[in-house]
Amino acid sequence: MPRYCLHVEYDGRPYKGFQAQGNLPTVQGSIERAIKAFSGETLRITAAGRTDTGVHATGQVVTFDLVKAFPADKVRDAINAFLTPEPIAILSAEIPDDPDFSARFSATGRMYLFRILNRRAPPALEQGRVWHVKKPLDAELMHKAAQSLIGTHDFTTFRDIECQSKSPVKTLDIARVKRIGEEIHLVFAARSFLHRQVRSMTGTLVEVGLGRWDIGDVAKALAAADRKACGQVAPPHGLCLTHVTYEANPDFENRSSI
Amino acid sequence: MPRYCLHVEYDGRPYKGFQAQGNLPTVQGSIERAIKAFSGETLRITAAGRTDTGVHATGQVVTFDLVKAFPADKVRDAINAFLTPEPIAILSAEIPDDPDFSARFSATGRMYLFRILNRRAPPALEQGRVWHVKKPLDAELMHKAAQSLIGTHDFTTFRDIECQSKSPVKTLDIARVKRIGEEIHLVFAARSFLHRQVRSMTGTLVEVGLGRWDIGDVAKALAAADRKACGQVAPPHGLCLTHVTYEANPDFENRSSI
Repeated sequence: MPRYCLHVEYDGRPYKGFQAQGNLPTVQGSIERAIKAFSGETLRITAAGRTDTGVHATGQVVTFDLVKAFPADKVRDAINAFLTPEPIAILSAEIPDDPDFSARFSATGRMYLFRILNRRAPPALEQGRVWHVKKPLDAELMHKAAQSLIGTHDFTTFRDIECQSKSPVKTLDIARVKRIGEEIHLVFAARSFLHRQVRSMTGTLVEVGLGRWDIGDVAKALAAADRKACGQVAPPHGLCLTHVTYEANPDFENRSSI
Repeated sequence: MPRYCLHVEYDGRPYKGFQAQGNLPTVQGSIERAIKAFSGETLRITAAGRTDTGVHATGQVVTFDLVKAFPADKVRDAINAFLTPEPIAILSAEIPDDPDFSARFSATGRMYLFRILNRRAPPALEQGRVWHVKKPLDAELMHKAAQSLIGTHDFTTFRDIECQSKSPVKTLDIARVKRIGEEIHLVFAARSFLHRQVRSMTGTLVEVGLGRWDIGDVAKALAAADRKACGQVAPPHGLCLTHVTYEANPDFENRSSI
């Protein structure tokens, strides 16, 4: 019973998030339907990140087992054929060396990119892909403030009240903010994140970028360990899961463009 | 009667091209409706490039006159407000120094970018924004072949049979092809182009990139001055009008990223 591991890219707009929910359109539901269409097998896939409604991915990873063995490239092409014309693409398929390899439980790091379009005019070509913030943002101040989030902390402030994680303590490895032309890119990496943590941190850093918060206010909000201390929560459509790592000591340094 | 000049970005997907055609959805029709909605004036706008169905723009330029004078920034914001939620954005509005300035007739150069997604998997996030070519393309060979198109030539081979230009003779200033990760970018600049010239040149260069044509075959096709000598014509959705220049001697060198 071979196990398959897929790298997946998707546009989150038409989906109610990754995770299957009955007959609602979800990324998981669409991939599982495509797998059944080519293999005849009904199964559940496991994913590295359960992205929210409207959140995109260029580096999602999923695993599943098939009773019948197919060459990995055939699995990739067959799923892509049955997914057409949905905006989900299987970039690669492989059979992992470790038969117990899990896209979710073997993951040692996850990296997200949040894109803000920072200009007066609304987005046209990037509609649904960026958060539009009209007023000028100071990316350098945002980057400085973001450094106070790095390390192991109780992230209750940046945790959605519906988060089901057992502990609010997480270790944030990377938090970078950089202006790239009209866009502000925020990159975050950690072993794992709390529910809406990236969007909560991003929205809070925007308060700094707008000059409404001082740099030190972010550290104070974190120390409060209180959801009410969070700034605004950024909308989902600027967010993208870009990388998942499986090495014991993930090297995220060279994985983001900023 | 002040003249206004707008820089415009749009996603070509929902439109039957730029040019107004009765009640069909067009970029021109949407902008003219938005102008009427805020100013009450019914008018025709003039554009630098009449892009085809499905072709995008990040640097389209349009001009028009209003009977009543408004500050340029108010014109920009008002048109954007009435365009929402259409994927058209007015990036800037200004009142040109020269009252006879025309987005179309004053233009001295136009630059287009054509994006090819060159990988096995179909596009997910870039659906409708790139041409998907599965087989590996040799971008260096394509670039070498493209150099034979530079200069003043009879471009009949690369001209749509419905092209209404008086002469098939045009001067191509820039033709560059470069691989950027999984994408191949083609950049072309000229004072003006024939109908479907960029898509015809792009499709033909892909024949070289796939190894089906030799580099020299592109020069031979050009010299034939015969539409039947053209290779395939690339689809519209990979194409984007990125820059229009109005200087006497346009400097395109620093305007493209490749």
